[in-house]
Amino acid sequence: MYFASDNWTGASDPVAAAVAGIDRSVPAAAYGTDDLTAEAIAALGARFETDIECAFVATGTAANILSAAVMARPGGLYLTHRGAHVAVDELGGAEALAPGFRTYRLDGPNGKITEQALRHALDELPDGNRFGRPVALSLTQATELGTVYSVEEVSTLAAIAHEAGMLVHMDGARFANAVAAQGCSPAELTWRAGVDLMSFGATKNGCWCAEAMISFRPDLFRDLQIFRIRTGQVLSKSRFVATQLLAYLKDDHWLDLAGHANSMAARLADGLAESNLVSLDWRPDGNEVFVTMSDELVASLTERGAVFHTWPVGDLMPDEKPARGFSLARFVTSFATTNEDVDGLLSLIAESETSMQKAG
Amino acid sequence: MYFASDNWTGASDPVAAAVAGIDRSVPAAAYGTDDLTAEAIAALGARFETDIECAFVATGTAANILSAAVMARPGGLYLTHRGAHVAVDELGGAEALAPGFRTYRLDGPNGKITEQALRHALDELPDGNRFGRPVALSLTQATELGTVYSVEEVSTLAAIAHEAGMLVHMDGARFANAVAAQGCSPAELTWRAGVDLMSFGATKNGCWCAEAMISFRPDLFRDLQIFRIRTGQVLSKSRFVATQLLAYLKDDHWLDLAGHANSMAARLADGLAESNLVSLDWRPDGNEVFVTMSDELVASLTERGAVFHTWPVGDLMPDEKPARGFSLARFVTSFATTNEDVDGLLSLIAESETSMQKAG
Amino acid sequence: MYFASDNWTGASDPVAAAVAGIDRSVPAAAYGTDDLTAEAIAALGARFETDIECAFVATGTAANILSAAVMARPGGLYLTHRGAHVAVDELGGAEALAPGFRTYRLDGPNGKITEQALRHALDELPDGNRFGRPVALSLTQATELGTVYSVEEVSTLAAIAHEAGMLVHMDGARFANAVAAQGCSPAELTWRAGVDLMSFGATKNGCWCAEAMISFRPDLFRDLQIFRIRTGQVLSKSRFVATQLLAYLKDDHWLDLAGHANSMAARLADGLAESNLVSLDWRPDGNEVFVTMSDELVASLTERGAVFHTWPVGDLMPDEKPARGFSLARFVTSFATTNEDVDGLLSLIAESETSMQKAG
Amino acid sequence: MYFASDNWTGASDPVAAAVAGIDRSVPAAAYGTDDLTAEAIAALGARFETDIECAFVATGTAANILSAAVMARPGGLYLTHRGAHVAVDELGGAEALAPGFRTYRLDGPNGKITEQALRHALDELPDGNRFGRPVALSLTQATELGTVYSVEEVSTLAAIAHEAGMLVHMDGARFANAVAAQGCSPAELTWRAGVDLMSFGATKNGCWCAEAMISFRPDLFRDLQIFRIRTGQVLSKSRFVATQLLAYLKDDHWLDLAGHANSMAARLADGLAESNLVSLDWRPDGNEVFVTMSDELVASLTERGAVFHTWPVGDLMPDEKPARGFSLARFVTSFATTNEDVDGLLSLIAESETSMQKAG
Repeated sequence: MYFASDNWTGASDPVAAAVAGIDRSVPAAAYGTDDLTAEAIAALGARFETDIECAFVATGTAANILSAAVMARPGGLYLTHRGAHVAVDELGGAEALAPGFRTYRLDGPNGKITEQALRHALDELPDGNRFGRPVALSLTQATELGTVYSVEEVSTLAAIAHEAGMLVHMDGARFANAVAAQGCSPAELTWRAGVDLMSFGATKNGCWCAEAMISFRPDLFRDLQIFRIRTGQVLSKSRFVATQLLAYLKDDHWLDLAGHANSMAARLADGLAESNLVSLDWRPDGNEVFVTMSDELVASLTERGAVFHTWPVGDLMPDEKPARGFSLARFVTSFATTNEDVDGLLSLIAESETSMQKAG
Repeated sequence: MYFASDNWTGASDPVAAAVAGIDRSVPAAAYGTDDLTAEAIAALGARFETDIECAFVATGTAANILSAAVMARPGGLYLTHRGAHVAVDELGGAEALAPGFRTYRLDGPNGKITEQALRHALDELPDGNRFGRPVALSLTQATELGTVYSVEEVSTLAAIAHEAGMLVHMDGARFANAVAAQGCSPAELTWRAGVDLMSFGATKNGCWCAEAMISFRPDLFRDLQIFRIRTGQVLSKSRFVATQLLAYLKDDHWLDLAGHANSMAARLADGLAESNLVSLDWRPDGNEVFVTMSDELVASLTERGAVFHTWPVGDLMPDEKPARGFSLARFVTSFATTNEDVDGLLSLIAESETSMQKAG
Repeated sequence: MYFASDNWTGASDPVAAAVAGIDRSVPAAAYGTDDLTAEAIAALGARFETDIECAFVATGTAANILSAAVMARPGGLYLTHRGAHVAVDELGGAEALAPGFRTYRLDGPNGKITEQALRHALDELPDGNRFGRPVALSLTQATELGTVYSVEEVSTLAAIAHEAGMLVHMDGARFANAVAAQGCSPAELTWRAGVDLMSFGATKNGCWCAEAMISFRPDLFRDLQIFRIRTGQVLSKSRFVATQLLAYLKDDHWLDLAGHANSMAARLADGLAESNLVSLDWRPDGNEVFVTMSDELVASLTERGAVFHTWPVGDLMPDEKPARGFSLARFVTSFATTNEDVDGLLSLIAESETSMQKAG
Repeated sequence: MYFASDNWTGASDPVAAAVAGIDRSVPAAAYGTDDLTAEAIAALGARFETDIECAFVATGTAANILSAAVMARPGGLYLTHRGAHVAVDELGGAEALAPGFRTYRLDGPNGKITEQALRHALDELPDGNRFGRPVALSLTQATELGTVYSVEEVSTLAAIAHEAGMLVHMDGARFANAVAAQGCSPAELTWRAGVDLMSFGATKNGCWCAEAMISFRPDLFRDLQIFRIRTGQVLSKSRFVATQLLAYLKDDHWLDLAGHANSMAARLADGLAESNLVSLDWRPDGNEVFVTMSDELVASLTERGAVFHTWPVGDLMPDEKPARGFSLARFVTSFATTNEDVDGLLSLIAESETSMQKAG
C-alpha cells in the first residue's frame, strides 16, 4: 500500500511503450533541435490553445528555479505560500541563480494564498523599503496540501500581482490533477487567468522524466533558455522526453491518469471521513489526502505495511498544526493506485479502530 | 552518414532493453533512495575499485557545473583548456553558482593542457594578485579535440595542481573512449592519478540519459548534494537512470561500445590520411577525427548528405587555425557507426578528388 | 531637538582634529598599507587584548555583508533576530554575495534572541532538511531596540551555535554603547564569549566614516579580504580612517562618547516614564529609547520641531506591536545630545499633557 | 620622489579646508538625504550640463562594480580593454553581484580598445553562441596606460556598442586628467558621446574619499541604488563627501589639479625622452608616464629613493612587452607633484647614464 508520493510509480503503459518504440537506428539532432521535440511542443501549444514558448528540463524543481531566476530583480522578493515547494523544499534554489533574491512566505489556509494575505504583504512592502521589493508571485496548482485554486482565484491573485508590477508563475507539478478536478481548460487556468510562466509537470502523473517550462510571454523566454544552458538542463537526447509527452497528451491520456488519481483520493477521503481515529481537516481536490491522526496510529499503520509521510509542521498555519501526540499524515494517490490499495488502507485503519474499541 | 555528434544516436540495445524491462507495477522510493540506484552506484564503485560518493544528474554540463561550484572559492579561478566545454560551451555555468568564480583558459596543442602552460599560469597568478587565485583544474578526458591524456600526464598535472592547493576535476563526457583507447583501468586514469571529482558520462556512449558526478573525496560530497538539490538535478524516478547504468557497466558493455566507436574513428582517420583534399592534423585517440579541408569541400560533402560540424576557430591554438578558405571539420563516430558509414564518407571525398583531378 | 539617529551628528572634536591634522604634504602608501593604518589596527588589538585581524570598510552594512559572505555555505541559513539590521534593512545584502544564503529570523522580546528561540530553530532545521542548514548566528550589540546582551547571554548563545557547527558574528554598530552600559571589557563581550567575527562601528559614535571588520579567527580573514576587494571596500587613502580610529580609541574617548549618549538616553527614559501620554515598554540599556505613543502625539511633537522616527511594526514581536492609533517611537541620543535637548523634548510632551488635561 | 600612484597623496588645501569647515554642531539627515549632498549632486549636474542621477560610493572600484551589476544580464559578457582595472584588479568584482557575468578582454595598443577589436569580438560572439552575449562595454578614461580616448573615439565605440544592444560605461577614475588633457567639456566626453553610466573619481585628484556613480540614463538608476544598499556603499554621514566634491568642483579646482598633474607628466616625459637609458614607448596624455628600462636601472633608482611601480606584463599587448631583463616602469604624477620631484627623478637617471658611460 504505497501512498508516499506519486513519484514512486513507474510510467504508464502508453508512455513506456512510446519510449520503447523510438527508432534508435535513426540519428536525431541533439539538444532539442530534433523533429520529435518540435512536435511535442506543438502538441502542448495546441492543448493550451495559444502560442507558447517551451523547453524541457529534467525536474520540476528545475522548472521552478529557472522561472524564479528569470523573474528575479536585484533586491527582489518572490512571494509564495508559506508551504510552497519552491520556498521550503529546494534548499534555496529559487535564490541560487539570482543572489539576494528572497522567497517571502504568505499565509493562507489549506495551502492556498488568500487575496487578503497578498494585499497585506504588498502593504507591508511599500516602494523604497529596505527589506525587498515584490517582483514575482508563485501559485502551486494543485497546492502542496491537495487543494486547487479556482479559475477565479488565480485571476484575482494574478491581477493584484500584475497591478503591483509583479510576474506570475504557476508551479504545475500536479497541474493535471488540478485541471481534471475542475473540468476547466488548461488555458482558462493559466494564461487566460494571468499566468506568465509555468512549470508543467508530467513525471508524477505517468512519465519517467518529462518536465517542461512554458512561457506565455515570449519576451521572457530568451533568459529562460540561457539559464537552462547555464544550469545543465538541456538534455542532449531530447526526443526521449518528447516521445513521453506526445503519448501523455494524446487523446488526453494525461487527464485520464489524473482523473483516476483524483477519484482514488476521493474514495480514500470518503472512507477516512467515516473513521473515528482520524480527522479529515479538508476535502482533497486533487490526489493528496491529509488527515490528522495519533502518532501511535502512524506507527501502527507503518508497521503493517502502509507507506506514507507525515507533513512538516513548520509549513502549516497555526490552526492547522496537530496537537502534541498527533501528526498530519499525507496520502498521495496516483494513476497506478487501485481500489484495492485504497480499501486495504481503510481496512488497516478499521482494524485499529476495532482493536481500540476492544481495548476500551 | 551522421558524424555530427555521438549524442545524435539513440540507446544501445542492452540499455534500451533495461529501460523497457523495469517492473513499473512495483513502486520504488523516489529521489535516488531506491534499491536500483544503490546497486548502480555500487557497480560504479566496484568498476573504479574504490569507495566512491556518487549522484546522478541530468546532463554532463550539470555534472561539470556542480563540480565547479563545489570547488569554487571567492575570487577563485578555474583553470581549463582554452577549448574546454566548461569554459566555452556552457554560457558561464561554471560561474553561475559561485559568483565571481572565473574560468581561466590555458593553452596547449591538440586540446591538451601542457605542464608548461599550467606552471606558467601559476607563475603569473601569485598569491595576493588581484586577478584571482587558482583553486581548481579541469581536464577533459577524452579532450574536445579527440585526444587523450595519458595516466602519466594526468598524474603530472594533478600533482602540480595539488601542490598549488587546487582541486582536480575530470570532465569525463567521453571517459569511456579514453579508457578504451589506452587499455588502462578507470582507477589508474582518475583517483590513482590524483583526480578529486569526476563527471562520468554515459549518454554519448549508448544511454538515453545517464550522467553521474563521482567524488573520490568524501568531504566534497555534501556540498555536491546540496548544489544538486538547489539546481533541480535530483531526478525523482532515479531507477530509470540506474537501470541504464547497470546495463552500461555489465560485462564492460561500455568499453565495447567505446572501443567500437574508437575503431571507427581510426578507420576513418586511416582513410582520410590518404586523401589529398584533407589534412589530418593529428591522429584521433578517441572517437573524434579532425581534418582541415576547403570550405568548398565542406559544402559539397554536406550537400551530398554528410552530416558534420566545423569547429569554432576561437578555441584553437594559433597554429591550429585553418587558413582563409579552409575549415577544421570534426567527424564524431559512435557505438552505432558502421563500416558502411565510414566508407560512405570516404567515397564522397574520393569522388570530390576524382572530379577535381578531371577539372584540373 | 534631533533624536532621529546617532548618524545625524558630525564628528567629535578630537576626531575632527585628527582628520584636519594629517600631514598631507607627505605621501603615504595606499590601500591600507600605510603606517597609520597599521598603528590603528594595533591599537584596536590592544584594546581587545588579543591578536586580531582587521580591515577597514566604508560602512557598517558593508562589515555585516562581508562577514555574512565569509560565513556562508551553499544552502546555508544565517540566523538573526527578526528585527536585525542585517535581515531587514540591507535589501538582501547578506545574501548578495553568497547566492541562496538565506537570513532566518528568530523571535525574542526587546530585540534579543533568546536561548529558547535559538534551540527551537535548530530543532526545526535538522540535518538533511531541504529548507536550509544553519551556518551562522548574528547578534546585534547593542540591539536595534536599545537593549544589550550580557556577557553571559552572548556566551550561552555562542556556545549553542558553535555546538551546532555555526559561526558567530556580532554586529557592533553600537558596540561602544553596549560596553559603556555594562562596564565590562571589549574582550569579555566578544571573543572571550565566543564571537568569531565582528563589525566594529565608530561612525555613529563620533567619527565621520570609520568602520572595521574584526576577525578573532585568523583562518576567516583571507576570505574577508577577498570579499573586501571584490566589493570595492578598500579605501585607497586609508590613513584618513586610521587617524579617526586612533583619536577614537585614545584614552577611551570612545567610551566617554558612548557613556554620555547612554546617560542622555537614561535621562530621557526617566522623564518619559513619568508622563501619562507615553508608555516606556522597556528601559534602554544603550542610547535608544522606545516608547509607545498616540499617532496624534507623534504628529504634534514633529510639528513642534522634534525629529525622530517611528519603528516598523513588522519587525516587532506580536505583544510589542502598538495598538491601532498608536506607534512605537524611537529616540536616539548621541555623544552630541545635551541636557537641553532632552529636557526640551520632555517639555514638549509635558505641554501636550497640560493641553490635554485642559481639553479634558 | 613619489611616483607610485596618485592615491598616495593627501587632500588638496581647498578640499581639506572644506572637511574641516563642516559645522559639526548642526545635525544633518543621514544616508545622503541631507542638503549638502543635494547641493553637490546639483553642482555635478551643472558641470555636466544635463540632468543626472548620482550617488556617492566609497571607492572607484565600488562605482565600477555597481555599474557592472546594473548592466549585467544572465550569460552576459562585459567587454573591457585587456588591461582594464575592472578586469584585472578587482578580483572578479564585476562578476560578484551578477553570477556568471563575465569580463571579456579586448586588445588594443597603449591601453585603448580599437574599433577593429570591438567589431572583431562582436563577430566572434554571434547571437546564440554558448560562450556569452556581449551586453556592456567599459572604457577607462584616462586609460590604465596614461592615454586618453578622444571624443570621436568614444563616440565611435559607443555607437558600435549601442547598435549591438550593449550599454556603455566609463571608468573615470582619472576623468579629470582626460578632460584637462583635451580641453573638451565633460559633457562632450561622456553622455554626448554615448556614455550611459560613469564612475566619477575625485579621490586620486585631491580628495580624501569622494567617488560618485553618475547615470545619464534615469532608467538605470533604481537598480544602481539597490545594489548600492546591498553592498554597503551608502555612507551615513554623506555630507562629508559632499563638501569635498563641492570644493573640488568650485571654480574648476578639479581641472586645475589635473592640469597640473598632466603638465608634470609632460615635463617628465620630455626629460625621459632624452635619456638613452629608457625608452618612452608612447607619450602620456594624462598623468601616467610609461618607459621601458633595464631591471638594473629599476633597482638602482629604487635604491636611491625613487618610489614607483613596474607594470604587470600580462596586461600588455605582445609588442608592448619588455624584453627579458627589462621592465615597463610607471611614473604617476599628481596635483602635489612638483618640478623638483620631476627634476630629481631625471637627475637620478642622468647620474646612472653618466656612471654607465664611465664604466663603458
